[in-house]
Amino acid sequence: MHFADRLNEAVKRVKNPICVGIDPRPEDLPPGLLDQFSGDRRGVAEAFRVFGFGVIDVVASVTPIVKFQAAFYEAYGPEGMGALHASAKYAQEKGVLVLIDGKRNDIGSTAEAYARAYLGKVPMGESFEPPWNADGLTINAYLGSDGINPFLKIAKKEEKGLYALVRTSNASAIEFQDLVCDGKALYRHVADRLAGWAEPYRGDTRYSLLGAVVGATYPEQLAELRESLPGVPFLVPGYGAQGGSAQDVAPGFDEQGLGAIINSSRGLTFAYTKAAAKARFGDNWQGAIEQAVKDMADDLAANTRAGKLRDSDPAK
Amino acid sequence: MHFADRLNEAVKRVKNPICVGIDPRPEDLPPGLLDQFSGDRRGVAEAFRVFGFGVIDVVASVTPIVKFQAAFYEAYGPEGMGALHASAKYAQEKGVLVLIDGKRNDIGSTAEAYARAYLGKVPMGESFEPPWNADGLTINAYLGSDGINPFLKIAKKEEKGLYALVRTSNASAIEFQDLVCDGKALYRHVADRLAGWAEPYRGDTRYSLLGAVVGATYPEQLAELRESLPGVPFLVPGYGAQGGSAQDVAPGFDEQGLGAIINSSRGLTFAYTKAAAKARFGDNWQGAIEQAVKDMADDLAANTRAGKLRDSDPAK
Repeated sequence: MHFADRLNEAVKRVKNPICVGIDPRPEDLPPGLLDQFSGDRRGVAEAFRVFGFGVIDVVASVTPIVKFQAAFYEAYGPEGMGALHASAKYAQEKGVLVLIDGKRNDIGSTAEAYARAYLGKVPMGESFEPPWNADGLTINAYLGSDGINPFLKIAKKEEKGLYALVRTSNASAIEFQDLVCDGKALYRHVADRLAGWAEPYRGDTRYSLLGAVVGATYPEQLAELRESLPGVPFLVPGYGAQGGSAQDVAPGFDEQGLGAIINSSRGLTFAYTKAAAKARFGDNWQGAIEQAVKDMADDLAANTRAGKLRDSDPAK
Repeated sequence: MHFADRLNEAVKRVKNPICVGIDPRPEDLPPGLLDQFSGDRRGVAEAFRVFGFGVIDVVASVTPIVKFQAAFYEAYGPEGMGALHASAKYAQEKGVLVLIDGKRNDIGSTAEAYARAYLGKVPMGESFEPPWNADGLTINAYLGSDGINPFLKIAKKEEKGLYALVRTSNASAIEFQDLVCDGKALYRHVADRLAGWAEPYRGDTRYSLLGAVVGATYPEQLAELRESLPGVPFLVPGYGAQGGSAQDVAPGFDEQGLGAIINSSRGLTFAYTKAAAKARFGDNWQGAIEQAVKDMADDLAANTRAGKLRDSDPAK
């Protein structure tokens, strides 16, 4: 099934558009977890794997998609990448979609190598096998069509998804993205190109397999882009720890409460580090994460059109 | 020692500015190599490792730096990344600098995680250890200062180098990079910001630890950028297989023949696949690679200021 259709089905099933960001940092892991393993790359990677599995165990049935931040796994070498591989596989076994946040970018056969790596298959012996088998990947469009077409080709063939950076959530996003070129901001040029690239790859539910990353920290631009890119699904970072509120992400949704997934990473998966959660959940770090997801779902339901997802009958 | 000083020292020692790009693809490996290993990810990764070691054995004493294209290793999962890790370590043991071409990009603590991963150290048990320990990394600047500063901080501390995409070598580079914003092309905006970022991080030999990727396929812009970014070292892709000639890369050098390293990947490391090389070297694929490096060095010496490197006494 087409990526956007699969994603929308998952969003409707769990009745919320939350993307749980898994960014493992040794210093924020549950107390005592690291101490159970050896003090080398293999040990930290094993702790990341156990943490990732533990997060997935509590979020897989209540969220449509999880996002793994590749950087934190790459920081522990090939062993760290092994933990990412195992965690992504586990998430899919538990029925949740997997997005790898790698912001990969290159041209031609190198871009195709990234696409085959994360979304497709590579030649192995007599056959072709999927090395990472993610459902989606984030990419960076600075290199233009040559850098996007190889990803589109593989994503279409494999029924996978892509999210290209358009408007990032950071303060210095404006340095380049707001430069006005031929009468409109650079991020609008990127958005308009992206709309053209996305158009031939729509699924049954309006949306393309090619989406856009648009930060919650720029709500006016999120509204403007939702309007002008009706077929492009959004990945919206910046909710929670980065300062974005439900009101800020609200313009990302269409009239059905679809069209955007809202990521939160630290705010969810390190919820147990907050004093209030510690008081309530003690050592039950998974309980604190589960509660944080429920609270975020309630916040989005109360303050955005994602609330409409709760009105619908999931059997339909 | 500062990255740019180390690189310039290596360029002067071998008297050429060649960056050997190692982009392993199963279909282009030396005949029979893949068959020696199992037909799974581990087997292909092992073939990549043996190929990489074999390339390094013949190029380490005659080139200053090798560049590993991360995508091709990532395409074989954690095992492929293991081959990259082993090959990078081997190259350094053989005395050649290691650049990882990953075009990484993100913001804040995630950008710092990438920087620590590839160039720095991460917490491990009671100490800090370098997971990849590369000498340099390619990055993408679309996210602005928030995406660059964490890399600069770590690179300075660890005496490592960075190359940010400014003008890529592909045809569609013009789609965004040539958009005219406030009177100048976007790639010039990126270049001017980069000059400012690079300035506080210069070494003893004029050049900063922060460099720019400028494609050989746009020689006029290469000339213009060499002029306007005197302290920024260049990584110039596009020579050879992508169509760039020695004349095209010539404007990248300063008056001493420094300031640019010229990458060639397929043209060097798959040299044995060409009919003329097969006729001359038969099964000696390493001989074909060594000859291709010598031919490229001669071409650059004859047609660019890199020829001045041959006039100097390496003992000085």
